[in-house]
Amino acid sequence: MTVRVGVVGTGMIGSDHVARLSTQVAGAAVTAVFDVATDRAREVAASAGARSLASWQDVVAADDVDAVLVASPGEVHPEQVVACIAAGKPVLCEKPLATSAAQAVRVLEAEVASGRRSVQVGFMRRYDPGYLDVRRAITDGVIGEPLLAHAVHRNAGVPDFFRGEMALTDSVVHEIDVFRWLFGAEIAAVTVVPVRRSPLAAGDLRDPQLVVLELTGGQVVTVESFVNCRYGYDVRCEVVGSTGTVSLDNPRTTAVRTAGARSERVPADWQERFAPAYLEELRAWVDGLAAGRVDGPSTWDGYAATAVAEAAVRSSREGRRVDVELVPRPDLYA
Amino acid sequence: MTVRVGVVGTGMIGSDHVARLSTQVAGAAVTAVFDVATDRAREVAASAGARSLASWQDVVAADDVDAVLVASPGEVHPEQVVACIAAGKPVLCEKPLATSAAQAVRVLEAEVASGRRSVQVGFMRRYDPGYLDVRRAITDGVIGEPLLAHAVHRNAGVPDFFRGEMALTDSVVHEIDVFRWLFGAEIAAVTVVPVRRSPLAAGDLRDPQLVVLELTGGQVVTVESFVNCRYGYDVRCEVVGSTGTVSLDNPRTTAVRTAGARSERVPADWQERFAPAYLEELRAWVDGLAAGRVDGPSTWDGYAATAVAEAAVRSSREGRRVDVELVPRPDLYA
Amino acid sequence: MTVRVGVVGTGMIGSDHVARLSTQVAGAAVTAVFDVATDRAREVAASAGARSLASWQDVVAADDVDAVLVASPGEVHPEQVVACIAAGKPVLCEKPLATSAAQAVRVLEAEVASGRRSVQVGFMRRYDPGYLDVRRAITDGVIGEPLLAHAVHRNAGVPDFFRGEMALTDSVVHEIDVFRWLFGAEIAAVTVVPVRRSPLAAGDLRDPQLVVLELTGGQVVTVESFVNCRYGYDVRCEVVGSTGTVSLDNPRTTAVRTAGARSERVPADWQERFAPAYLEELRAWVDGLAAGRVDGPSTWDGYAATAVAEAAVRSSREGRRVDVELVPRPDLYA
Amino acid sequence: MTVRVGVVGTGMIGSDHVARLSTQVAGAAVTAVFDVATDRAREVAASAGARSLASWQDVVAADDVDAVLVASPGEVHPEQVVACIAAGKPVLCEKPLATSAAQAVRVLEAEVASGRRSVQVGFMRRYDPGYLDVRRAITDGVIGEPLLAHAVHRNAGVPDFFRGEMALTDSVVHEIDVFRWLFGAEIAAVTVVPVRRSPLAAGDLRDPQLVVLELTGGQVVTVESFVNCRYGYDVRCEVVGSTGTVSLDNPRTTAVRTAGARSERVPADWQERFAPAYLEELRAWVDGLAAGRVDGPSTWDGYAATAVAEAAVRSSREGRRVDVELVPRPDLYA
Repeated sequence: MTVRVGVVGTGMIGSDHVARLSTQVAGAAVTAVFDVATDRAREVAASAGARSLASWQDVVAADDVDAVLVASPGEVHPEQVVACIAAGKPVLCEKPLATSAAQAVRVLEAEVASGRRSVQVGFMRRYDPGYLDVRRAITDGVIGEPLLAHAVHRNAGVPDFFRGEMALTDSVVHEIDVFRWLFGAEIAAVTVVPVRRSPLAAGDLRDPQLVVLELTGGQVVTVESFVNCRYGYDVRCEVVGSTGTVSLDNPRTTAVRTAGARSERVPADWQERFAPAYLEELRAWVDGLAAGRVDGPSTWDGYAATAVAEAAVRSSREGRRVDVELVPRPDLYA
Repeated sequence: MTVRVGVVGTGMIGSDHVARLSTQVAGAAVTAVFDVATDRAREVAASAGARSLASWQDVVAADDVDAVLVASPGEVHPEQVVACIAAGKPVLCEKPLATSAAQAVRVLEAEVASGRRSVQVGFMRRYDPGYLDVRRAITDGVIGEPLLAHAVHRNAGVPDFFRGEMALTDSVVHEIDVFRWLFGAEIAAVTVVPVRRSPLAAGDLRDPQLVVLELTGGQVVTVESFVNCRYGYDVRCEVVGSTGTVSLDNPRTTAVRTAGARSERVPADWQERFAPAYLEELRAWVDGLAAGRVDGPSTWDGYAATAVAEAAVRSSREGRRVDVELVPRPDLYA
Repeated sequence: MTVRVGVVGTGMIGSDHVARLSTQVAGAAVTAVFDVATDRAREVAASAGARSLASWQDVVAADDVDAVLVASPGEVHPEQVVACIAAGKPVLCEKPLATSAAQAVRVLEAEVASGRRSVQVGFMRRYDPGYLDVRRAITDGVIGEPLLAHAVHRNAGVPDFFRGEMALTDSVVHEIDVFRWLFGAEIAAVTVVPVRRSPLAAGDLRDPQLVVLELTGGQVVTVESFVNCRYGYDVRCEVVGSTGTVSLDNPRTTAVRTAGARSERVPADWQERFAPAYLEELRAWVDGLAAGRVDGPSTWDGYAATAVAEAAVRSSREGRRVDVELVPRPDLYA
Repeated sequence: MTVRVGVVGTGMIGSDHVARLSTQVAGAAVTAVFDVATDRAREVAASAGARSLASWQDVVAADDVDAVLVASPGEVHPEQVVACIAAGKPVLCEKPLATSAAQAVRVLEAEVASGRRSVQVGFMRRYDPGYLDVRRAITDGVIGEPLLAHAVHRNAGVPDFFRGEMALTDSVVHEIDVFRWLFGAEIAAVTVVPVRRSPLAAGDLRDPQLVVLELTGGQVVTVESFVNCRYGYDVRCEVVGSTGTVSLDNPRTTAVRTAGARSERVPADWQERFAPAYLEELRAWVDGLAAGRVDGPSTWDGYAATAVAEAAVRSSREGRRVDVELVPRPDLYA
């Protein structure tokens, strides 16, 4: 049985997903796509043997679409995801689930009203072999009781449209989700500490930034966000427990020795670093659909991450520690 | 278009290939399988929605088989591959292509007579991201002119049926192929140096062994073969050039700090270490077939590796350096 | 010319210093020692061919004492250092210079009144080859403009007398000094963030703790203090600049591969980790004295570090960010 | 008590030793020096407050010389060491002890005739913390029974006077000594395998070279010698045992991340790499003399290493495996 996927949004990440679904994921086929950039949509559709439709609504409604992948701009995610829920079609929504906690709650309510989980949020790091190793070390008790963590999230640079708070809502949101998942706890408070600005930071970007996350269990996480570090894409962390630590570095296999140094490559960008995670995410999603289940990162995870990112933005603007207030967690996500 | 694959041999590696082809390789389907262990064949066939046939000849002849994957014992490879050539069906033959150079020549002659390349030999390391990095460093000139290399090939342990010379014909054969490929040269001479025997080596195994390969370009490679090292599966190498070196280690992403040490995991076995390479090998083979080409490791590569392994066995038995004599290379493999 | 050193305090660190001065530092001799534990003092004196005197005042006054090393408990440091200044004898005072900023100011005033620098504070990390490498990378411009840093300071365990705030005043004080030195700036504010307590922390110890330092130049440093991490002594940091980073790890030269892992040793304790730094500190001090100069970490450095540690204690007690108020810096320390 | 040292030879290594003895080794003083380059000798003498004498014989005979350090060219070592034995003065002789096995036997016979050990040979690697770690892992049983080893010995470049066989007699001689020491066995046979010549090798240098050492216990060691590797000074090894391995790398503490890579420095030269070993060697020698004993690498070690290097030269010239024939080991070295 082949899962027929409709894809809404064929920008960078959407078209990568189409390529993966059509050539690297067994049991999946892309049948319909939509993008406001019609030419691009047509081109991507052709590469996958799919149709390019006139609206995202057409994709959701199409008879030959069993499931939808939403890779449009974040602002329209809630409306599109809610439409998928209404149409009874499972959906994989790229992060963020919504650009405000209030919008995310709308999706949450729609899914709860539908009575079953059909939405997965694209927190692909949960499928990265490295993060899975970190999680296994924790759950296997290798480090004792987890107490705190340190993370850095660095990009060589960012596109021109990247504004100051997107570092929190688009980059750090990954750490927000990851540490909720690793610690099995919600984030209770956020403090964004201003840092000396990089002379290379473009526009009005506050860069780098330090984010301190406090979890409901008392664990603390420091996250450095630096989107103009220049030297590469560098995502690392160390989780500290009562008897040991586990740390995640860039995947390394080879090294060169030249000109006075032994050097290991740092990934150039997130596409290089997380390509295996994106692929695994899609495979698990498609395999799950074939088996009749949706069990990846949930609408609740998407909502909680959005709420924390929103609190981080407020902390950054107001220069103070901000408590995170979440709505009660519906039983559907117990 | 789906490439329909028939699989001959459903032992450990054959059944792994069936699983990969049916769930991880887009554009491929396993349609028929055969194994002398009939029950096992039936079980593997069922898992892939394929038929279990009465003989390997039936698999080769089947109308719904576009290409054949040979994963039977090495002794029968030549006969089966020659039959595929005769039937005009592309074949991916697990290493070794043959258990003697003379047998490998038979396959070479059959393929040359057919007038086109249709055989690929399963030297999966050429598809490993790490080895590809090593090769890229060489071809990009990062290390200057390549001059020599060092390699270790260690297994935690081996099955009971593993006899003394299989370390040369089944394990070191991978290094033989890899360094021919990395240096773009043939191996001209082999010397196996006896080493103090491990007290943990089973049966009559000579273990560890040191193999010195001399290439036609004057490059030299040391290969340590140790199939009872106990601590894990450890395949590493360093290629030394006139201005630098490039080295391959185990892929590492995470580390733990506990009990006085910072530790990185060593792979348990070749399945863990080379799973991505096997998958990539199959994908490239299937994609190539879909595009009408066979361009992986060739019959010539399989023949040359077998001839070198045979010389290594002779060196080990006779306690002396042995020259490798190859038949002239047919134009088909230029 | 031999520098004749009198040592006040022959506890763990004092007796280590005596051993180093008498056997590893050319141009130095220990001639007189004092400790309230008379037997211990006598024993240590004998090992170095020195006299054991009846009071620390006798050591300071002794004709055959050219310079004094103070390794007594921190509470009595100010009085002893001031006495050395009064006697016109150079002094190397173990950290902390004082247990309160007010006490440190007394020493500062005494030295300023004397008209010349004669006091060095025992911030030995400034002599560690690793930290010197980090500093060189910064001053050589390797990482661009330094913007922030992350540090961990972990001890396997601590003695029974170690109380909650000593982690700040005795351990983190090293990071306080190091980052003032690396960034060439004072620390303007401190925030201690409470962290989930380790179930293995003894007594009333708050452990681990997160300390956020904000420097006058806008740079920010995160310091994890964990004095019960169990697995070893682990002091590391990464300084992040506008175009790169430089990081300090434990010194490593050897690795073992056994039982499924490649492992590198973590130091057992600070004696192992920083033995070369202590030795270099003493050599530089003695060489400087022989050349008529005192140019190591100054009374000002000792005062500033104490003031920041005091602010950290206040932050921890009051649960808020605390500004650091320093007295004006005398010209003597320009 | 101060050990008064006379130094014969004030070239690069001799003057380094003078500096170390006079400023970094407690309990030692350089009192007399000699070199055929009189000006250089006078300068070095002045730096250490020593006298510059008219001949090496004067140094050996001087009343204020308790022990002699020989750092002259290798050709004159035997005569000078024998003179020290005759004068009853302990001597530390830089490697090689002699430039031929026959010459080394003369020294051996002289020391045996004197009835006691007074000669130490300058194999400073035995004092390197890294090699000591490797040895400890072996003797502690961490790797099981040691079976084989791999070593690389690379220099960025060599001085103009460096000729082809000096790579064997001056560089590889260190590995020859180290593996005799680590395995506790003699070397029974040597094979030098010619390698494709580096286009950057100067003069008639055969470079790189592969040396295979076979020990009396059946252990085998591969040594790559490459004196024109260009990128740095790189000495590493891995000793392989029946249950694990221990490996020696360059000492590393810091790393930089810039321009797409994480880099660790490779030492520039042997002075940088082995400075701590040379210092420790001198300290241990001086401490031993003060305690009335000479227990470092012995005349036997110097002889055996010379004999193996001589066999390596013969192997290289004759293109064949050469057995090492040693004279019987005198009881003095049991």
